[in-house]
Amino acid sequence: MNRKMVVFTIGKLLKVEALLLLLPFIVGLIYREQEATAYAVVAVFALLVGTLLSWKKPKNRNIFAKEGFFIVGVSWTLLSLFGAFPFMLSGEIPSLTDAFFETVSGFTTTGSSILTTLSTISHASLFWRSFTHWVGGMGILVFTVAFIPIASGRTMHILKAEMPGPIIGKLVSKVSVTARILYVIYTVLTVIQIILLVLGDMPLFDSILNSFATAGTGGFAMSDAGIAGYNSAYIDGVLSVFMILFGINFNLIYFFILGKIVPVLKSEELRGYLAIIAVSTILITINISSQYPSYLKAFRYAVFQVASIITTTGFATANYDLWPMFSQMILLLLMFVGACAGSTGGGIKVSRIQILIKHAIQELKKIIHSRRVTSLRYEGETISTKTMENIHGYLVLYLLVFVVSLLILSLENIQFQTIFSAVATCINNVGPGFKGVGPTGNFGFLSDLSKWTLSFAMLAGRLEMFPILLLFSKPFWKS
Amino acid sequence: MNRKMVVFTIGKLLKVEALLLLLPFIVGLIYREQEATAYAVVAVFALLVGTLLSWKKPKNRNIFAKEGFFIVGVSWTLLSLFGAFPFMLSGEIPSLTDAFFETVSGFTTTGSSILTTLSTISHASLFWRSFTHWVGGMGILVFTVAFIPIASGRTMHILKAEMPGPIIGKLVSKVSVTARILYVIYTVLTVIQIILLVLGDMPLFDSILNSFATAGTGGFAMSDAGIAGYNSAYIDGVLSVFMILFGINFNLIYFFILGKIVPVLKSEELRGYLAIIAVSTILITINISSQYPSYLKAFRYAVFQVASIITTTGFATANYDLWPMFSQMILLLLMFVGACAGSTGGGIKVSRIQILIKHAIQELKKIIHSRRVTSLRYEGETISTKTMENIHGYLVLYLLVFVVSLLILSLENIQFQTIFSAVATCINNVGPGFKGVGPTGNFGFLSDLSKWTLSFAMLAGRLEMFPILLLFSKPFWKS
Repeated sequence: MNRKMVVFTIGKLLKVEALLLLLPFIVGLIYREQEATAYAVVAVFALLVGTLLSWKKPKNRNIFAKEGFFIVGVSWTLLSLFGAFPFMLSGEIPSLTDAFFETVSGFTTTGSSILTTLSTISHASLFWRSFTHWVGGMGILVFTVAFIPIASGRTMHILKAEMPGPIIGKLVSKVSVTARILYVIYTVLTVIQIILLVLGDMPLFDSILNSFATAGTGGFAMSDAGIAGYNSAYIDGVLSVFMILFGINFNLIYFFILGKIVPVLKSEELRGYLAIIAVSTILITINISSQYPSYLKAFRYAVFQVASIITTTGFATANYDLWPMFSQMILLLLMFVGACAGSTGGGIKVSRIQILIKHAIQELKKIIHSRRVTSLRYEGETISTKTMENIHGYLVLYLLVFVVSLLILSLENIQFQTIFSAVATCINNVGPGFKGVGPTGNFGFLSDLSKWTLSFAMLAGRLEMFPILLLFSKPFWKS
Repeated sequence: MNRKMVVFTIGKLLKVEALLLLLPFIVGLIYREQEATAYAVVAVFALLVGTLLSWKKPKNRNIFAKEGFFIVGVSWTLLSLFGAFPFMLSGEIPSLTDAFFETVSGFTTTGSSILTTLSTISHASLFWRSFTHWVGGMGILVFTVAFIPIASGRTMHILKAEMPGPIIGKLVSKVSVTARILYVIYTVLTVIQIILLVLGDMPLFDSILNSFATAGTGGFAMSDAGIAGYNSAYIDGVLSVFMILFGINFNLIYFFILGKIVPVLKSEELRGYLAIIAVSTILITINISSQYPSYLKAFRYAVFQVASIITTTGFATANYDLWPMFSQMILLLLMFVGACAGSTGGGIKVSRIQILIKHAIQELKKIIHSRRVTSLRYEGETISTKTMENIHGYLVLYLLVFVVSLLILSLENIQFQTIFSAVATCINNVGPGFKGVGPTGNFGFLSDLSKWTLSFAMLAGRLEMFPILLLFSKPFWKS
């Protein structure tokens, strides 16, 4: 393990976070809030620690898979810790457990909150919460790689560990250029959404924060009423479209912009993703229609909620906890499905599920045609045994983290659906669950043990198990 | 597909069932019950249909994997159907849906019941219910293979499809002899249990039926009070020991009888199985101790329930629905774990879970040692890629059946825990679930659609997905 390079990179990342913390500081200044100070103090602190760690430029700047996963695992935990300090320092979230939970929930684009009310929270902190979604969605390391040269060529190993999905495609041969293109698309789409929301009479500050939450598929509300408070079909529509958009693989969006329509139309994952959205919306619309004055109204809430849950954003315009169990079950299952690989969305990802099902069907076919060996193909390419084993390994690790989290949460002695959905919504980075942690509830009432467990689940989910679980392996800490 | 051989074998199996139906008929005669007639009529009917189907002995008597899976899938469905007829004919369970559910629950050794009371059920039918557990536990095809020569040599393909577990070991080179040894051990253990129960002052009829339910890890109660009704620590103890015994791989029991202790002591699966039982019992004992007068009493109920659930028997001596959520969660998770491969127990099986976890950890290690390739070893042998792929295929198919069943059950609009545990208890062949389908409830109130879905889940679970799912594949029905 190239330990010096790991420390150096983490130092660089802390400096980047120091820079990011200036934004909520500025917001605080604009609104003349004393909470701004907290952000300035933590920014300076992060800068100091970051400078110390990255003081000595290592001679050997090679990074391999091992280092990449380690950097990602450690830095996400550390950046969440530093990101939590302003909440504590400003007194808005005094407990470390709560502040850490909230920040992890932000960076991992989960959007689960321990806050019981948002009316007392400063603009600076509201901004920081939503901004962590935006940064975490595309990835803070992707961001860093895009603009700061760190390692020599091998940065792909960092991207691999941070980017969601079973197969990472580079847009162009150079990794830093790929990262830059991704961030440009990401920024432009976010700005377009802000403009569209402002045109819908949403205040500018709200538009910016809600767009951050949409782009990162995070879903932190910025007021107690949430999106439902705007009570506008136009706003619901804009958000639905942009949520679905940010759940699509950014490579496809890039191809689309370049005018390469064929790979977009041919994408198995995109088709599957849109098909699941369509079928779920239709089923829920029919199922909930009796609770709404018209099918159109039922459709509006159904499509919004389906888009919000499958993309793992987690906004809510309806208290879906009151919908029939069938609709609740569809939403719960959509949490696990998640969005497309290479998007900002969480969950298991449509492509992984499609590949897993293809493989399972192939196993069935093997019994009928015992001799014929066919290779597994996805998106026009053969899935290697290595990729397949990685996906199966991921699935089992995912189930293990899920089961252990369930067991720990069950110490709460609360309703089963609350526990199950709390773990599901956190590991899949969605946001709200059902019942106690439903769209009208929050995570504040849980014990500290539960909150740390869920923070862990959120990080494991966002980083797709491997980087976080590797932190617990012995050889990782040995020289 | 050797279609003639498939029809011929299914005919033979129906004749075997006709023979088995004579037993409840005799019980009915002994107790002078008019329900006996129903069993006689169906026995004759099954004999007729069976004779018709097996009239012509096929020239080509070869059976390959394809035929083996097809025979198992069709025959389990068909034998359940014929086994349901006496319930309908006697008027004790008039609805086809209910009678089929009850019989599938019997043969698959699930033990979920749609009956709201057992006090009105004849001895003949009580006997038949419990006897289906005993036959289904070791396998009706294993039984047939043991005593009737059907195919030429290739019968291993049938055993493979019917016997639980990822790897099937033959005890001796000849399959029919292996099957006979298994049934002899099975019968002897059952008889010993009957004697021990009678010595504990349990009536003979009860002892026989409860031993059938234990041996098959089925768990049908034979009175409304169930095992709790005997209120005897001795009986609880005997049942706990025998439940755990019948959850052990029969190959190991065979080795043990032969005096080969080393492979028994070295078995990773047995160690894992006993460790899980020990840890779960300790955790639950501590967790429920405040609800009982002493730790000893808490231990008695904890060990019984853990043994009952992990072996997927499903007896209950306590209303564990009133235990704290932590204990409930442990029991729920034990349903999925299940017993050892090659036992009569259901669930995913300890060995599969151990292999899946080993593989996942290996995937983690691959990141650290990118070049070193180590083969996966289990029980002293290398796990082939083929076996690994089959286990992963099984896991995904299992999850798919689970999810689809959840969706259909959610049309019920009942509590989430009821739905989730109903599917879990049926697919894992346990018996009772929680809340609505908990130890004091039953499955009678569910809709017909739910009952058919759960019947399907029980069959898919007992036959470990492949034989039942293959029935839905097109090439299976083409010549």
